[in-house]
Amino acid sequence: MNFDEELEKRKNLVEEILERYLPKAEGEQRMVLDAMRYAVSAGGKRLRPILMAESAALFAGADEVWQTDCAAVPKPPTVAALPVFMAAIEFIHTYSLIHDDLPALDNDDYRRGRKTTHVVYGEDIAVIAGDGLLNYAYETAFRAFSKAVTIEDYQRVECAMNLLGRRAGVYGMVGGQCADLLAEKQETPPTKETLLYIHKNKTAALIQAAMTIGAVLSGADEKAVEQLTTCAENIGVAFQIQDDILDVTSSLEVLGKPTGSDEKNNKLTYVTMHGLEESKRQVRELSEEAVEILRSFPQKNGFLETLVERLIYREK
Amino acid sequence: MNFDEELEKRKNLVEEILERYLPKAEGEQRMVLDAMRYAVSAGGKRLRPILMAESAALFAGADEVWQTDCAAVPKPPTVAALPVFMAAIEFIHTYSLIHDDLPALDNDDYRRGRKTTHVVYGEDIAVIAGDGLLNYAYETAFRAFSKAVTIEDYQRVECAMNLLGRRAGVYGMVGGQCADLLAEKQETPPTKETLLYIHKNKTAALIQAAMTIGAVLSGADEKAVEQLTTCAENIGVAFQIQDDILDVTSSLEVLGKPTGSDEKNNKLTYVTMHGLEESKRQVRELSEEAVEILRSFPQKNGFLETLVERLIYREK
Repeated sequence: MNFDEELEKRKNLVEEILERYLPKAEGEQRMVLDAMRYAVSAGGKRLRPILMAESAALFAGADEVWQTDCAAVPKPPTVAALPVFMAAIEFIHTYSLIHDDLPALDNDDYRRGRKTTHVVYGEDIAVIAGDGLLNYAYETAFRAFSKAVTIEDYQRVECAMNLLGRRAGVYGMVGGQCADLLAEKQETPPTKETLLYIHKNKTAALIQAAMTIGAVLSGADEKAVEQLTTCAENIGVAFQIQDDILDVTSSLEVLGKPTGSDEKNNKLTYVTMHGLEESKRQVRELSEEAVEILRSFPQKNGFLETLVERLIYREK
Repeated sequence: MNFDEELEKRKNLVEEILERYLPKAEGEQRMVLDAMRYAVSAGGKRLRPILMAESAALFAGADEVWQTDCAAVPKPPTVAALPVFMAAIEFIHTYSLIHDDLPALDNDDYRRGRKTTHVVYGEDIAVIAGDGLLNYAYETAFRAFSKAVTIEDYQRVECAMNLLGRRAGVYGMVGGQCADLLAEKQETPPTKETLLYIHKNKTAALIQAAMTIGAVLSGADEKAVEQLTTCAENIGVAFQIQDDILDVTSSLEVLGKPTGSDEKNNKLTYVTMHGLEESKRQVRELSEEAVEILRSFPQKNGFLETLVERLIYREK
């Protein structure tokens, strides 16, 4: 299989996992469940769950991580908690998109080529669908404890839970969203430091959560987790700059969402601050550093290295 | 001390706990932290944390639960995890109020006599302040694991975590909010079953979480937790009917929020469906059943019994 086929295979496995953990749309609360399913099933790259599993595969091996045979107990047993964390992190990413798209925030009517949740279900249901999905992300992650047998297993799951909570909240993604919203409203442009804070938190934080959770559940030591934290920050910032680049250089047909929206919203991005060429150079530099860190581990994961490199050349 | 003094003392201890766990408003994300603090510090009855602690006191004794001497290790050790769960449940209650008050939902400009979060900070910040607070509730609850020593402790904390997640989400509070929003929009009035579903989930679910978490952390057995689940459901439904009654019979000065808002929003309540007298009768009946359950335990907590009875006569 070539890389694209391997990636597609992994994406399909993530879709299976999401389907397994998404609640059925039934009962008196059917509408909010329906809205949650609508948002999650919009597709997307599923980058965060894939990065989580591949970071785990770096330490535990791809067979342990991607095996679908539930009967076998992987080593360490907490590897079996990966699917619930993979679902949880994609639910958190998706809730943030639902709320970001709201009229009071980015006011986007389209996402991934489909109408956004509030356009289909109304603003009120979109607000509580985001809330429901964030809460359900944690409900799902809590299932991880059922895989713990020893105190050490419990501590690993506890550590993964803390990483998820911290990076998703006010000291991570939500903090980045706050600085981003404020930057748009201010008359004076934000400093370079503020822009970097936004990228590090709004985008990189969840990618850091993904990769470090994968490492922790597969038994990586503290130093390796620390190195992956830096690696993931680079990937996250590079990914966000690339997003800003594509908003300028791509089109609705390729991207599945309207381009030029940053300019329309008078949004300051890496591209408007540093120019297109310098932004592209930074994406390359950050990605190369990230790959170097991956290559420095005694264990190897060629797929993960290629995936990170591909982020440079992605066109959607 | 009489009951009111005792209640005030507990409320003050809860305020201390909230202050201890609320993040400082600083850094690039200062605005969202500020909005979170604003919403949490608006006061309120702090009913959920108090019910949690008093349910724990029923099984572990008031001295173990309300002691502020952190040096002593309570029995069981998971009682020491009460403060983080008390803060977490109040954060969850508060986030739901921030989002409920938004223009797209209940569109309330006042809450507890103060302007609501979106009026002060803008709708965009209010949305992410709610998100940040929900997420921070779980971040706070995760600290409970640091109190666990044995596998049994871990399992108790895990059980408490699951109760919190389930009752706060689409199979609890968020589910109730969904049915409530839909009921308001429909031309035909909701059935009695739907109205009861709304009260059981929108209000009672979080009270159930509070009381059962308290019981679990203080080592109550499965049967006692089950009985408390029913007791808390009664309290929650009675509390909500009383809320509907006060919306008709009270005033802005007493209540600290505009009255008649249910009528204004064309909202179907227990009062409009069953009439004022029948609603009052049901509050009494549900509360008496709840107290009977509390009295059936071999352990006694007179304060908790009085607290539940007072819910009948509260005027705000």
